[in-house]
Amino acid sequence: MKQQLEQAYKEVEGDLLKDLRQLISFESVSAYGSQLDECASFLKELLRGFGFSVEVVKNKANKPVVLAERIPRGNGGATLLLYNHYDVQPPEPLEEWSSNPFELVERGDRLFGRGVADDKGDIISRLYAVEILDKITSGEAGLGIKWIIEGEEEVGSPSLDAFVAEHLDKIRADACLWEAGDLTEQGIPNFYLGVKGMLYVEISRRTADYDKHSMYAPIIPNAAWELIQLLSRLRDKRGRVRIPGFYKRVKPPTREELKSIREIRIDYKRLMQQLGIREVRHKTAYQALRELVFEPTCNIAGLASGHVGKGAKTITPSLASVKIDFRLVPGQRPEEVLESLRRFVKRFGDFDINVYTMLPPARCRPGSPVVKAAVEAAVEIYGVKPNVFPSMYGTGPLASIVKHGIDAGMLNSISNPESNLHAPNENIMKKDLMRSTLQLASMFRRLAT
Amino acid sequence: MKQQLEQAYKEVEGDLLKDLRQLISFESVSAYGSQLDECASFLKELLRGFGFSVEVVKNKANKPVVLAERIPRGNGGATLLLYNHYDVQPPEPLEEWSSNPFELVERGDRLFGRGVADDKGDIISRLYAVEILDKITSGEAGLGIKWIIEGEEEVGSPSLDAFVAEHLDKIRADACLWEAGDLTEQGIPNFYLGVKGMLYVEISRRTADYDKHSMYAPIIPNAAWELIQLLSRLRDKRGRVRIPGFYKRVKPPTREELKSIREIRIDYKRLMQQLGIREVRHKTAYQALRELVFEPTCNIAGLASGHVGKGAKTITPSLASVKIDFRLVPGQRPEEVLESLRRFVKRFGDFDINVYTMLPPARCRPGSPVVKAAVEAAVEIYGVKPNVFPSMYGTGPLASIVKHGIDAGMLNSISNPESNLHAPNENIMKKDLMRSTLQLASMFRRLAT
Repeated sequence: MKQQLEQAYKEVEGDLLKDLRQLISFESVSAYGSQLDECASFLKELLRGFGFSVEVVKNKANKPVVLAERIPRGNGGATLLLYNHYDVQPPEPLEEWSSNPFELVERGDRLFGRGVADDKGDIISRLYAVEILDKITSGEAGLGIKWIIEGEEEVGSPSLDAFVAEHLDKIRADACLWEAGDLTEQGIPNFYLGVKGMLYVEISRRTADYDKHSMYAPIIPNAAWELIQLLSRLRDKRGRVRIPGFYKRVKPPTREELKSIREIRIDYKRLMQQLGIREVRHKTAYQALRELVFEPTCNIAGLASGHVGKGAKTITPSLASVKIDFRLVPGQRPEEVLESLRRFVKRFGDFDINVYTMLPPARCRPGSPVVKAAVEAAVEIYGVKPNVFPSMYGTGPLASIVKHGIDAGMLNSISNPESNLHAPNENIMKKDLMRSTLQLASMFRRLAT
Repeated sequence: MKQQLEQAYKEVEGDLLKDLRQLISFESVSAYGSQLDECASFLKELLRGFGFSVEVVKNKANKPVVLAERIPRGNGGATLLLYNHYDVQPPEPLEEWSSNPFELVERGDRLFGRGVADDKGDIISRLYAVEILDKITSGEAGLGIKWIIEGEEEVGSPSLDAFVAEHLDKIRADACLWEAGDLTEQGIPNFYLGVKGMLYVEISRRTADYDKHSMYAPIIPNAAWELIQLLSRLRDKRGRVRIPGFYKRVKPPTREELKSIREIRIDYKRLMQQLGIREVRHKTAYQALRELVFEPTCNIAGLASGHVGKGAKTITPSLASVKIDFRLVPGQRPEEVLESLRRFVKRFGDFDINVYTMLPPARCRPGSPVVKAAVEAAVEIYGVKPNVFPSMYGTGPLASIVKHGIDAGMLNSISNPESNLHAPNENIMKKDLMRSTLQLASMFRRLAT
């Protein structure tokens, strides 16, 4: 099938790049709320041209969501939901871009532009995979496709959960192809069958209305010292969280999941080098991956009290605060962790807790047909077995889909370690755009029977 | 003697206010380096007019220091060193001043202007105390006076120590009258026979070159957590410092010093209210004062790591730092405490220590003739016994004088709790300017025999 797919890709490549160029040209920055309607309208027309019935529906934040559907002519295949987002990160700092962020530019073997790796390139790759599927099956493939393309992903998808629940009839499918995975430096596709959950809180302590001259330190409370009392009890030396019950509901990895971790090929030493980490805690990639994938964390993301600027100032701080992200694994629920945290914190005094993010973890069933098809297609196109992670190390709103019984995973690969996601000079390899599209088409073909 | 002094004050009050007005008019802000030479030159001429031989000498920072001396006509008296500073704090925020900061303005029973309380009012008060002493003794008093007036006090007196050592022959005296003390709300003079020392450091930990996505939290070091490990061991729950040897050299208060604390009259509850402290740790003023005066402290003045701005950011910080001021008491030496701290910190990993300030504590002998004269003069002028603190709660460069065997204390009172030191609308009571001048003249008279 590979040759046939490559031939079809050659025929559509010019159109594909033209559509990608147009999609990139929209400054659809969700943080600024710019050109969201325009971009959604463009996608509506674009998808219509490919045989989708499309509507643009406003979510509860009054932001446009593209909902599309394509009924198969053939019979017997699965219905696949595609999830993407048309919004992008702000392009700033502009001076660090080598070309206009909102213009698709080809340099060497790479394509540059804001969103080309996250997530507009992915949208176009999927769209042309459907087109290629049509070509090689003469439009007779039995694959139903539903598509949700939101415009709030880069600001944390605050409305997605409610939107999915409300429009479940238009979203219900056998499986969901979430955003794209990525490629290792050696060109091995990384697929992810889930995400960690997240509880992001700010815990703060106020001991007085304003900071005091530190000559009073012997007799007045110091908010920083009080916060440190609390934090020093929140984790033990090895990093284990000491909130009672924190690990109680954690589902330990299955043998199958541990096996999948063992099979992953990453250059751990190189990753540590790239991260600039000199003190490596784990001897093997397996040990590191096991923690990255399966361990919940309690990470201080920010700490502030008193004088944080330059130089010396002699005050006793009246306010101290810490920002913590807990990444959660299957079995843990953010609401429950928050309740346990509240009870724990209470023991140490009068602290406030401000909640920023609550996202449950989510996992796709590892043996599901959609995963099988994705892996087989990857072997065909890339000539290697992909790395299949039971979960990403990071977080996303996958649960909004998965909780409705729809398996969702990141099962194609478009970016690589040098793609500068969320950063200036975002880019993908031209050949990875092709390979992602071919792998998707091959996967769709496998699911269409 | 009091009536005679009051009579003399009335005769000179007009000139005194005129000179104060001129001195206030100099914008001698050491933080900006403005009008320091002009102000020093003015003081040189002014003091000459009162019979002082005066020179302006540059210190190692090339800033002008006024050095003056007045040889007594009479015999048998002491030689007294006066320490003052002609520099002031920046006047900003200007919009919060009710009148021009550099113009002496009388409103109600108060005089307003930058420096009127700290330290220009004090200079003029001392100058006219000398004038009054001359008047009532017909210039025959046996009191020798030396005077050092520097222009770097408000930026931490970085050159004072070396300057004093270099010009010791012009500074050597039986005792030193340091900057002024203050008055309680009930009008009781507060005298201070010393200062605490200070070691101000910033301790920081860098675990990587830049902050990382917190999805890597399970396998990479977090600078904030590492700093908390250290800080949680630096003090115990009650606030006792756990650096080995920290308390070893602390000289416990003598019975005489404890007695002097017992005799101090302050409204402790009101002080706590003014500080906005709801959770009062000490039942009595004595308990609080005992700690304020005699306890060394380890105070977190600032704490920063990772994302300290608004909102949520999911990073694992690569840098964490804490600013700590240690206030030291007699027996402790900042160099030794720093060495103990370095050894202590080393146990917890690779932390950097940046030293901002090192000032030793200093104390005047409580029974010295200059203190006795000051107390007797205060009883005469104020009609109450002054509060005599063995030490301030705060810090200053007193040791630069005391280490040469010269007793130095804050033995007159010019500001009150509403004087807004270092703040907009700095002011003193007109009557306190008079009472300070009379008390000084009475004290000089007592030391002149």
